[in-house]
Amino acid sequence: MAPIGEKKGVLERLSGGEVVIGDGGFVFALEKRGYVKAGPWTPEAAAEHPEAVRQLHREFLRAGSNVMQTFTFYASDDKLENRGNKLSFTGQQINEAACDLAREVANEGDALVAGGVSQTPSYLSCKSEDEVKAIFKKQLDVFIKKDVDFLIAEYFEHVEEAVWAVQVLKATGKPVAANLCIGPEGDMHGVSPAECAVQLVRAGADIIGVNCHFDPMTCVKTVKMMKEGVEKAGLKSHYMVQPLAYHTPDCNCQGFIDLPEFPFALEPRILTRWDMQLYAREAYKAGIRYIGGCCGFEPYHIRALAEELAPERGLLPAASEKHGLWATGLEMHTKPWVRARARRDYWENLKPASGRPKCASLSTPDSWGVTQGHTELIQQKEATTQDQLRPLFEKAKH
Amino acid sequence: MAPIGEKKGVLERLSGGEVVIGDGGFVFALEKRGYVKAGPWTPEAAAEHPEAVRQLHREFLRAGSNVMQTFTFYASDDKLENRGNKLSFTGQQINEAACDLAREVANEGDALVAGGVSQTPSYLSCKSEDEVKAIFKKQLDVFIKKDVDFLIAEYFEHVEEAVWAVQVLKATGKPVAANLCIGPEGDMHGVSPAECAVQLVRAGADIIGVNCHFDPMTCVKTVKMMKEGVEKAGLKSHYMVQPLAYHTPDCNCQGFIDLPEFPFALEPRILTRWDMQLYAREAYKAGIRYIGGCCGFEPYHIRALAEELAPERGLLPAASEKHGLWATGLEMHTKPWVRARARRDYWENLKPASGRPKCASLSTPDSWGVTQGHTELIQQKEATTQDQLRPLFEKAKH
Amino acid sequence: MAPIGEKKGVLERLSGGEVVIGDGGFVFALEKRGYVKAGPWTPEAAAEHPEAVRQLHREFLRAGSNVMQTFTFYASDDKLENRGNKLSFTGQQINEAACDLAREVANEGDALVAGGVSQTPSYLSCKSEDEVKAIFKKQLDVFIKKDVDFLIAEYFEHVEEAVWAVQVLKATGKPVAANLCIGPEGDMHGVSPAECAVQLVRAGADIIGVNCHFDPMTCVKTVKMMKEGVEKAGLKSHYMVQPLAYHTPDCNCQGFIDLPEFPFALEPRILTRWDMQLYAREAYKAGIRYIGGCCGFEPYHIRALAEELAPERGLLPAASEKHGLWATGLEMHTKPWVRARARRDYWENLKPASGRPKCASLSTPDSWGVTQGHTELIQQKEATTQDQLRPLFEKAKH
Amino acid sequence: MAPIGEKKGVLERLSGGEVVIGDGGFVFALEKRGYVKAGPWTPEAAAEHPEAVRQLHREFLRAGSNVMQTFTFYASDDKLENRGNKLSFTGQQINEAACDLAREVANEGDALVAGGVSQTPSYLSCKSEDEVKAIFKKQLDVFIKKDVDFLIAEYFEHVEEAVWAVQVLKATGKPVAANLCIGPEGDMHGVSPAECAVQLVRAGADIIGVNCHFDPMTCVKTVKMMKEGVEKAGLKSHYMVQPLAYHTPDCNCQGFIDLPEFPFALEPRILTRWDMQLYAREAYKAGIRYIGGCCGFEPYHIRALAEELAPERGLLPAASEKHGLWATGLEMHTKPWVRARARRDYWENLKPASGRPKCASLSTPDSWGVTQGHTELIQQKEATTQDQLRPLFEKAKH
Repeated sequence: MAPIGEKKGVLERLSGGEVVIGDGGFVFALEKRGYVKAGPWTPEAAAEHPEAVRQLHREFLRAGSNVMQTFTFYASDDKLENRGNKLSFTGQQINEAACDLAREVANEGDALVAGGVSQTPSYLSCKSEDEVKAIFKKQLDVFIKKDVDFLIAEYFEHVEEAVWAVQVLKATGKPVAANLCIGPEGDMHGVSPAECAVQLVRAGADIIGVNCHFDPMTCVKTVKMMKEGVEKAGLKSHYMVQPLAYHTPDCNCQGFIDLPEFPFALEPRILTRWDMQLYAREAYKAGIRYIGGCCGFEPYHIRALAEELAPERGLLPAASEKHGLWATGLEMHTKPWVRARARRDYWENLKPASGRPKCASLSTPDSWGVTQGHTELIQQKEATTQDQLRPLFEKAKH
Repeated sequence: MAPIGEKKGVLERLSGGEVVIGDGGFVFALEKRGYVKAGPWTPEAAAEHPEAVRQLHREFLRAGSNVMQTFTFYASDDKLENRGNKLSFTGQQINEAACDLAREVANEGDALVAGGVSQTPSYLSCKSEDEVKAIFKKQLDVFIKKDVDFLIAEYFEHVEEAVWAVQVLKATGKPVAANLCIGPEGDMHGVSPAECAVQLVRAGADIIGVNCHFDPMTCVKTVKMMKEGVEKAGLKSHYMVQPLAYHTPDCNCQGFIDLPEFPFALEPRILTRWDMQLYAREAYKAGIRYIGGCCGFEPYHIRALAEELAPERGLLPAASEKHGLWATGLEMHTKPWVRARARRDYWENLKPASGRPKCASLSTPDSWGVTQGHTELIQQKEATTQDQLRPLFEKAKH
Repeated sequence: MAPIGEKKGVLERLSGGEVVIGDGGFVFALEKRGYVKAGPWTPEAAAEHPEAVRQLHREFLRAGSNVMQTFTFYASDDKLENRGNKLSFTGQQINEAACDLAREVANEGDALVAGGVSQTPSYLSCKSEDEVKAIFKKQLDVFIKKDVDFLIAEYFEHVEEAVWAVQVLKATGKPVAANLCIGPEGDMHGVSPAECAVQLVRAGADIIGVNCHFDPMTCVKTVKMMKEGVEKAGLKSHYMVQPLAYHTPDCNCQGFIDLPEFPFALEPRILTRWDMQLYAREAYKAGIRYIGGCCGFEPYHIRALAEELAPERGLLPAASEKHGLWATGLEMHTKPWVRARARRDYWENLKPASGRPKCASLSTPDSWGVTQGHTELIQQKEATTQDQLRPLFEKAKH
Repeated sequence: MAPIGEKKGVLERLSGGEVVIGDGGFVFALEKRGYVKAGPWTPEAAAEHPEAVRQLHREFLRAGSNVMQTFTFYASDDKLENRGNKLSFTGQQINEAACDLAREVANEGDALVAGGVSQTPSYLSCKSEDEVKAIFKKQLDVFIKKDVDFLIAEYFEHVEEAVWAVQVLKATGKPVAANLCIGPEGDMHGVSPAECAVQLVRAGADIIGVNCHFDPMTCVKTVKMMKEGVEKAGLKSHYMVQPLAYHTPDCNCQGFIDLPEFPFALEPRILTRWDMQLYAREAYKAGIRYIGGCCGFEPYHIRALAEELAPERGLLPAASEKHGLWATGLEMHTKPWVRARARRDYWENLKPASGRPKCASLSTPDSWGVTQGHTELIQQKEATTQDQLRPLFEKAKH
């Protein structure tokens, strides 16, 4: 295995026209494995159960990921302590442990380590630009100490906060990627994807795009709008996309958070590996070269991206030893009618049934319409009380 | 942690009225993680990638499983070599590695090790009773050497073969559980669940039930029919159930193998954790005390069983530290409308949408109707040729 | 046009192997046209708006019906006055007007007139056999006076009451057809279709079958069970079927009455003309020769039956002048992509979408399980009061 | 009944703030009754089967319609003779008969007669403005001779042709209504609803709006866009809407013509009466005062509009004698659980199931994208030949 120093950096790869395969969603995958709590969604498992985080990194590496993102999502101190979340580890411990795990597994293959920051409760609670930037700075100190290969600011609902993050990250001299979690309608303040993109590029981001909140095709569409905005402004950028692994045709601007099924009944919406191949192709056609996933992406979803783009990348991922392209592994099945499914057109044309005849196909999303600046979004350290919950329950019923 | 010698055996537990929580499905979970190949579905990962298998055992243990089944599904020599499957490990190596991994993790908690055998290509290919029994015997030698706590014969489509397996297993003196993969219509030769049950008990099985092929409620219904048969015959048994984590209302007697979505587009059918709680309660009410899962069960599904039956069991599983019962963890969510979902009635009443408006809710299963004795089911060592596949493709189209 | 006297009778036709095409559902069709009130469902329109009833008869005749059923459904005096229903016409006036209209239109083509009686509130209210028979007798007096060609006892949920009706009708010497509104589970007292059939034949019915309450394929299946019962008993009969024009895969034994959509939201369940052709073929294959429809059948549905069986009948109905077989009329469409739909395989393979992505495909039927003999089914002349309704509303909510 | 001369004209009514209830769709309703042929969709029934047309007019009148539109849709000579359509009546005969029938029934109540023209094959075939206008003029001569109360130009896909029609109609001095069959994306040449609206008003239309092609809510949305355009241009108009009775969420700019289900499998999309009440309310709130229906509207759908707007109109339609508002007629039902449905909130909240678990909820519309000027839309007198059909069939398959 090549020493780190010899690996090409992310910008070198992208500038050279290479496809960079991202990784999948850690919080959702580890929630299902029993190491992350839905609600706070904090990444203490990096320190608490490192073997589980290491194993997931390794599975994404095997699946073809060229990037190990440090499992530091929501690892800012203000989020770690929000609403009564009690942890046995400090933010620094978690961030450091996450860096070490990412680096350890990255060294097992051709992957880079990316240090990640994301939106903060402080911004939602209307703290000042300086206060919010200080939060990012604190996480960043760890990333610099651990010498990550590049930085990602991701999961921002407001371009204003993302710009602040990019400014802080850019100061390190490391390559910076910036992802909003927005759809075609733009950010929570109504700023269009095109305008968001221009602001991020001007703030210094080298790679821009979207992650989370929407399904793959919606995210690709949004990045296309960003790209058009950047090109119209006479600017240049690299593009990335890391969508959900859930179908979200019924979402409004807030994405899957507003779906009634979020976060504990999204199963029927999970994309198949064939959906993923379509997505990879569509993203590639749109000129996006950093292609990965977010919540819901399991290793086999990432493998599907790597398999679809194998002709462009010139190689198959390690885990393809356990997967016949386009289902050819089924040629070894015992039953003849399953062997009959060992062909591409079968899976390309299949419309999978839900097995739930008493459920609908689309939902009506919640649309509370509250965002940064709204009193209902002021966060607190203390646990939510029943008195605080009751009016929410009432409102939700009507 | 108590030494193995002090753990209560499976029959002691069941006789004492305890609930025994089984584990989930290894082949499907590890296929998604990149370590098992769909088609042959063989468990070489036990020897090839032990860290991945160990991690999955550990996740099930954390989720509440009282049984670590050795990852030896389809690990008979005739299956390991079927249809061109080329492996770097012998059957003995795989079976031994699987026993060691199961024991290692079982020792980390209150779990027993169960050695498992399953149906053979030899039976489908009409080999003799002696030949088939020899296959079981070979796997069994490893289980005895490794001193597993009890034995499971599972995933049998024909009660005749299951009876042969039970006879071989029973000779060891270990407790024997026997599971068919049948639904209410009975086995592939049309033997009813009630009659199957009687035959298994008479062959010496201590615990009987069904696993795989059908969704939880269908499996519970089938075990109820088995129980009625046993009681009507004046016999006694313990009961177990380890169903799919997929909704299968549209299946015929062959179960999910016949669904067009098998095995690569089953995602929309995956059960939620709330579906699992309903299943656990229903199984318990039916008098079933060994309650687990099969294909599609991820650790969080097993945790849901353990949480539903926590009042009966008197304890929560370790992984519940990362899961608020009935979604109470959402009280810590940043968004007020998601906090409004932190209540039981919300999730109990939710009918989750598929997000796939161009897909139907039920499929028409394949119904080739071929089973043991049919020439199309004679297996072979050599890879399936294109000449063998072509007529299958043709037949599937019409 | 041949004078009535020269028309072949219904039994002559059936004995000669002819297909007899029935008519469609008057109460539902006329409710949509504004002449029947859902709830009481009484047929006063025969006297009140004869032009509307005449026109509907004529449309069915044009569509291929060989039978004009008198529009006398629920025209027994006890039903006409039930629960506050106030009408300006006596039962006798309605029954007479209905006979005249049926005869007038029957004379315009090759159709017979059938006088119909149906189940009574008196039976549900546990009146005696004599009382119930007297109700039928009164309607019958009109039919005899108007000299209908044959008699139909239809829409009986309890075979006991149907047998009483057949006994009364048989006494006239006219051919008697008897239809229960049951499915494969049998009548409301749990009597199987096979047993029901034997009782009806023994009571003197010449033609037996089912009408209403279930979709076509379910009804055909039920008549098959009746036929098997009759043949097993060494008896003989002719068979008829007049199902709903609604898909009802989710119904229990009470049929579509229990569906939450009954009677004002059944639209998404309406069968297409192509569904009807499949039904006609299936009924024919099952040996049923009197094939018609009930609630939901519009004239074009009946035409579809006549078109499917045109090879057997040797003629097309008059209304086929306005319908190209298998959509060939679309060859005259202005748009080329609609002309491309002018072929049989297009419509045979189409799975029509509901256009309702927020609705499910199956419902959970009400299952109050009350039937004849239950106090909640005792009927009354007076309008239902709010005090009587309130507990029903409450019960329905839980 | 008041003589015609004393009835208020359509503009008087609208200017006075009255609601004008339109009628429903004749071609689709009469196709189902056996009097119109799908494909050519021509209205020869006015001359051929006047009793059927008269009855349908009467049903709409009873349901609350204030307008009897002459059944002259597609009654221009070029359409009557298109693609091999052979009729026994001249265009003049059909147009005259239609006027007489409309007037006869209008005289039975408070309804006006509207003479209607619609788009022509000549325009699609790129004939000149003069040629197309001559076509309209010919129909108009009949309307003037028969002294209809006002004129409607409806079902125009191209605003250019609609403007030509309005210019011809306006010359008569009668009030003129103009309806395009477009959705929010605008006409087939891409002219926006707002711009279309301005052009129609400038051409002299007194009432503008849309009919056909889209479901009610989409049509209301489109008329709102037209109204905004008119107001922004500083103009004034009255507004009308006559949508489909089919749910069409999956349509593109060509509307339901492009749906795979058109025209013979639209059943699952039919709106319920409750859907119609929502539509009437929404249209009223949008400031639309002429509210009716088009294809798929049966008399009970029109009655639902009249019932919803009864408070505003101060009266119920005649046919409401057979319909309890918000299902109160069910209080007279025999079964207690159906009486439990005699309440508004039950029907308002019901999500009706399709009964078709193997069908999807949305379709993928055809998108051939050909329109006026494209050679595939040149029409012809001769029947379409098999040689012309074959390439269409081929194209449709890919």
